[in-house]
Amino acid sequence: MTRHDGRQWDETRPISITPNYQRFAEGSALIETGHTKVLCAASLEERVPPFLRGQGQGWVTAEYNMLPRATNTRTPRERDSGRISGRSQEIQRLIGRSLRAITDLEALGERTVQIDCDVIQADGGTRTAAITGAYVALYQALKVLVDSRAVRRIPLHGAVAAVSVGLVKDDLLLDLCYREDFDAQVDFNVVMTDRGELVELQGATEGSPFPRQRVEGILALAARGMEPLFAAQRRAIRQL
Amino acid sequence: MTRHDGRQWDETRPISITPNYQRFAEGSALIETGHTKVLCAASLEERVPPFLRGQGQGWVTAEYNMLPRATNTRTPRERDSGRISGRSQEIQRLIGRSLRAITDLEALGERTVQIDCDVIQADGGTRTAAITGAYVALYQALKVLVDSRAVRRIPLHGAVAAVSVGLVKDDLLLDLCYREDFDAQVDFNVVMTDRGELVELQGATEGSPFPRQRVEGILALAARGMEPLFAAQRRAIRQL
Amino acid sequence: MTRHDGRQWDETRPISITPNYQRFAEGSALIETGHTKVLCAASLEERVPPFLRGQGQGWVTAEYNMLPRATNTRTPRERDSGRISGRSQEIQRLIGRSLRAITDLEALGERTVQIDCDVIQADGGTRTAAITGAYVALYQALKVLVDSRAVRRIPLHGAVAAVSVGLVKDDLLLDLCYREDFDAQVDFNVVMTDRGELVELQGATEGSPFPRQRVEGILALAARGMEPLFAAQRRAIRQL
Amino acid sequence: MTRHDGRQWDETRPISITPNYQRFAEGSALIETGHTKVLCAASLEERVPPFLRGQGQGWVTAEYNMLPRATNTRTPRERDSGRISGRSQEIQRLIGRSLRAITDLEALGERTVQIDCDVIQADGGTRTAAITGAYVALYQALKVLVDSRAVRRIPLHGAVAAVSVGLVKDDLLLDLCYREDFDAQVDFNVVMTDRGELVELQGATEGSPFPRQRVEGILALAARGMEPLFAAQRRAIRQL
Amino acid sequence: MTRHDGRQWDETRPISITPNYQRFAEGSALIETGHTKVLCAASLEERVPPFLRGQGQGWVTAEYNMLPRATNTRTPRERDSGRISGRSQEIQRLIGRSLRAITDLEALGERTVQIDCDVIQADGGTRTAAITGAYVALYQALKVLVDSRAVRRIPLHGAVAAVSVGLVKDDLLLDLCYREDFDAQVDFNVVMTDRGELVELQGATEGSPFPRQRVEGILALAARGMEPLFAAQRRAIRQL
Amino acid sequence: MTRHDGRQWDETRPISITPNYQRFAEGSALIETGHTKVLCAASLEERVPPFLRGQGQGWVTAEYNMLPRATNTRTPRERDSGRISGRSQEIQRLIGRSLRAITDLEALGERTVQIDCDVIQADGGTRTAAITGAYVALYQALKVLVDSRAVRRIPLHGAVAAVSVGLVKDDLLLDLCYREDFDAQVDFNVVMTDRGELVELQGATEGSPFPRQRVEGILALAARGMEPLFAAQRRAIRQL
Repeated sequence: MTRHDGRQWDETRPISITPNYQRFAEGSALIETGHTKVLCAASLEERVPPFLRGQGQGWVTAEYNMLPRATNTRTPRERDSGRISGRSQEIQRLIGRSLRAITDLEALGERTVQIDCDVIQADGGTRTAAITGAYVALYQALKVLVDSRAVRRIPLHGAVAAVSVGLVKDDLLLDLCYREDFDAQVDFNVVMTDRGELVELQGATEGSPFPRQRVEGILALAARGMEPLFAAQRRAIRQL
Repeated sequence: MTRHDGRQWDETRPISITPNYQRFAEGSALIETGHTKVLCAASLEERVPPFLRGQGQGWVTAEYNMLPRATNTRTPRERDSGRISGRSQEIQRLIGRSLRAITDLEALGERTVQIDCDVIQADGGTRTAAITGAYVALYQALKVLVDSRAVRRIPLHGAVAAVSVGLVKDDLLLDLCYREDFDAQVDFNVVMTDRGELVELQGATEGSPFPRQRVEGILALAARGMEPLFAAQRRAIRQL
Repeated sequence: MTRHDGRQWDETRPISITPNYQRFAEGSALIETGHTKVLCAASLEERVPPFLRGQGQGWVTAEYNMLPRATNTRTPRERDSGRISGRSQEIQRLIGRSLRAITDLEALGERTVQIDCDVIQADGGTRTAAITGAYVALYQALKVLVDSRAVRRIPLHGAVAAVSVGLVKDDLLLDLCYREDFDAQVDFNVVMTDRGELVELQGATEGSPFPRQRVEGILALAARGMEPLFAAQRRAIRQL
Repeated sequence: MTRHDGRQWDETRPISITPNYQRFAEGSALIETGHTKVLCAASLEERVPPFLRGQGQGWVTAEYNMLPRATNTRTPRERDSGRISGRSQEIQRLIGRSLRAITDLEALGERTVQIDCDVIQADGGTRTAAITGAYVALYQALKVLVDSRAVRRIPLHGAVAAVSVGLVKDDLLLDLCYREDFDAQVDFNVVMTDRGELVELQGATEGSPFPRQRVEGILALAARGMEPLFAAQRRAIRQL
Repeated sequence: MTRHDGRQWDETRPISITPNYQRFAEGSALIETGHTKVLCAASLEERVPPFLRGQGQGWVTAEYNMLPRATNTRTPRERDSGRISGRSQEIQRLIGRSLRAITDLEALGERTVQIDCDVIQADGGTRTAAITGAYVALYQALKVLVDSRAVRRIPLHGAVAAVSVGLVKDDLLLDLCYREDFDAQVDFNVVMTDRGELVELQGATEGSPFPRQRVEGILALAARGMEPLFAAQRRAIRQL
Repeated sequence: MTRHDGRQWDETRPISITPNYQRFAEGSALIETGHTKVLCAASLEERVPPFLRGQGQGWVTAEYNMLPRATNTRTPRERDSGRISGRSQEIQRLIGRSLRAITDLEALGERTVQIDCDVIQADGGTRTAAITGAYVALYQALKVLVDSRAVRRIPLHGAVAAVSVGLVKDDLLLDLCYREDFDAQVDFNVVMTDRGELVELQGATEGSPFPRQRVEGILALAARGMEPLFAAQRRAIRQL
């Protein structure tokens, strides 16, 4: 299987994470994987949503948005309709759950970290890039809390990252770009911790139901694809 | 492991599907699984969404909604905010994809089947019940097309149904009710065809990452739970 | 005058009220009159709207909604536009006023009963069926207050029900179905108490102004039509 | 019974109608009844709503709105919420039905007359004043059609006007001002043609069901109150 | 240069201001300049917006709206879309800033004056007329505070008014009507105090950039045009 | 007058424009002036808005938006309210007018260039930076038309740029950063062509009316500040 950008079937795209990209945010990072670019910001707020008040624990939540010309043809802004699309909502809920899964919400205290993921350029894999980049923004914002002695240590249980795996014809492909994603019969997004545990697993098809025996191979491939992501996160964090 | 309603860990709730529940719809079914009740309607429309026009194929799409007192405390109507919640959107997109996966869209022709799933009573598993019940409503609506000779045979590749599996403490449980869902660390929704193939797989956790080796057992349990669902669908369809 | 369903001009459709239809609501009832089916739920809330705070009295209010396939062709959901149609608003305001007219709001105390009327199937007369059925749901919810000793007796002054009367050509018809409603030049909705007093009277025409002397006969016919409605309510309440 | 503005129980407030109030509208009128002032405009459009296309008949429809300081305390604009209140919708639907009842829609042809009623000052009876004033604006707009020879004669079957009647304690009062309306147990709005026929009848109470025998007297009083209204309309039309 | 309504190039349209036009408002004025008519109301509220709470100062803010038939063809109401148009927002922000520039917000105390400008008829210059008329409504509302001894003197530093100047071909024209505005290459709106100082200056062109040396002449002409406006304001205020 | 970033009173901030920043857009540019960063994209569409159809001319229009963490504290997204703020609307209308003033709309033909300005970081002067950067994106998109031979030459009459001037105490300052803008009594935004002509002039104050004689000096200072802006545009365009 030759991929049109020359990658092997089990190879991720080149990845770079620029931390501290937005000067006024408590945490921020620009993640680039291939042509996909997502700007992630983390905002600290000294309050929690109503359903958590008085329970001595914090919250992490996320918003996801595309700039109009991230895409090949212009995508109208969601503010025009006043509606957040089902796709955006699905993705931002996934980002929030993924980050909460590795955050020590009790140690965070009654604070919220609001994550904003804005897609600057979209060439497939924006949701997985958003999760991987948001982790760095979250880390930087939490470090502000440590530096100001509001908490003793970074309230995280580990790192989290995400990657896609697709089934194109009968072949597995790691980290799909837009064109590969378009051609895939089955599309998995896998979110894992740096200890190799699963956080979230979403596999979908529109017209090609598939044997459940394929899931094992998909997860193994995703696990392998995590390595460069965690490495890029560590490099970014060292620059803070 | 004793379940509070007396079920075994690998047992689904009692299920019944009443076809043709709404007199004016082309297809409809009331599905009851335990205390969960979802009314599913299928509407035939002789047109397709703009992105499909002129391509000689049809479309199946779904909406999902809760009646205010389906739940233990009243849930405000989504029309009040003019916003469809992220949860509703996630679910209705899942229902649509699941039904399209088993529909022969070319054979359907330039028609849309619009599925409406309205939750009358919610005790966990409303999204999986909606998929299982919507299949019957879809079948009935497509039969209208056959009966009127608009198409030659029911344009379906097979049946589709869905069930949940949870990880409560260290135990797997099939077909969670609301209270079990609340207690589960990990929550899977599995959509399969009656040939045993996977259509969709969603596994999520908020705070308990888990070993990927557990996925195999989860899928096997889900596969076993499909049997009574497909049987109930067949009984309902025979009544049409 | 022969009616297409075989009824006499002064005859109501068969009516049945199933109380306690939704397990999690404080009160609920499914009312069926002919092919019209409306699900009514009553929710108790320990607060009143802002304009009543601190005045030692309660409130009863209502929402009215159609399921998309209650009707012959699919009606889009109001959440899509974020607008409640003028028709829905008119009807839900009417239901609220009708129930307040027989509720002892002082005896209720600073509580709100929120009524939800969801039309499952619409064959004319949904607003009058909603009023008649909502009374049973309201009664059941208020009984919860008595049973929990929050109030001493059911805070109601009596029962309330509603029926339509139409002028088709020159004939009066009681309890119009959809087709008769469509043909009627003049359409009255009459809300009365079980003591025979008027609560609300709405008579409208689009193109056939009529002599005011006809109103007396219309009201007399409506009064006669109330009997089976109050009887059905009493049967339902006895089952609680 | 002494009324606080010195009127008899069966006396309407002073009424004046200034036709042609807005220079750019096809028809317009400012109606003043006591302190209530409503500006009515009629716009001619050479098209009909979708449900009437190709049927060779026209349409009359209305919108109703309050200026923020029509009232004693400022009422926020409905554009802020993007919601038209239930009250406004009820009223504008009533105005539309009332005008359609006296319009010869076939003779009008495939045209719409859009009526706008904007309340400049509100002291009770704005909906009845709106109907009475809108008739003059409608007449003027239809005269434009006659003058331009688009239609042969004014396509109206007669005139329409409206007045309120209230039951305050045990007394009937004609044409309620805001304070009387507030005190009334029962409140009727009656719409009639200049031939003395009924177009619409709405009677409501919140807490005081009343004997149906009172309706006859209410209608008789309303009929008497129509005289000065039709006279004011005729004076206004003569000025065109 | 002959103007189609016979005015000289440096002449404003006839202006009249009727104070106290809306009986229930604390302040109100109907301003007419040529065929342009704007109704301005001022509402006193004993509170300030959140960002000013506890700072011992007041606020003045404005809303601007057109009645549907102020214009030559009907303009749909902004409530229909739930969106305030960019034009309306621009204008109401301008009105607010202009009035705040001459209000002594400290002396006003923690109160808000809410200005409502509703355009009854639009023939060009509605934003400048709104500012000029709103000053009178504001003055009247502030006088209520003095009369009730809530403040010692009218908390105003002076009067404010506004006028437009256009460049049509190569000629300057004062106070453009709609048709002149349509023809102008460059359009200035100038807001000044009665001491001859500038409050706001907005000059725009769509297709005809112009030498900056013209600005001096534009401002001089605007300054001359202020005289009749301030005179009309003084006459209106003397009637209070 | 010492400025806190060491600039002279008549000095602009360092400016850089990176063209072609978004790979999938027909034109794009990232403009940085001091800490302010705005991403501008230009999209070509082969159609015009309804009001221009069939007139043989094109259109240029703009949208302006802030990323949530462009600012010191997080700004909620406008999609949440479904409302575009008055400030955003004012700015995007200004950007559109400014670009249209230098575009040859006839030569463009029946096409629209849609400009998107997204503020990545906001330290004052985002609207002027947006205009200056958008010109480069517009140029690049129009060059696509020339390269594809859809038009013969770039349909522009010249370049356009914008800068702010403020009056802080009694001193004029060129190109205000956020803190200076906050302190300024009077704030001008000046849009000019590279021939030195004025396109738009907006000067506003909230509490400090000022002598009109100051305007001349403000415009002269703005004209001087244009030089580095046009130079940066030329450098960016040479890189295309």
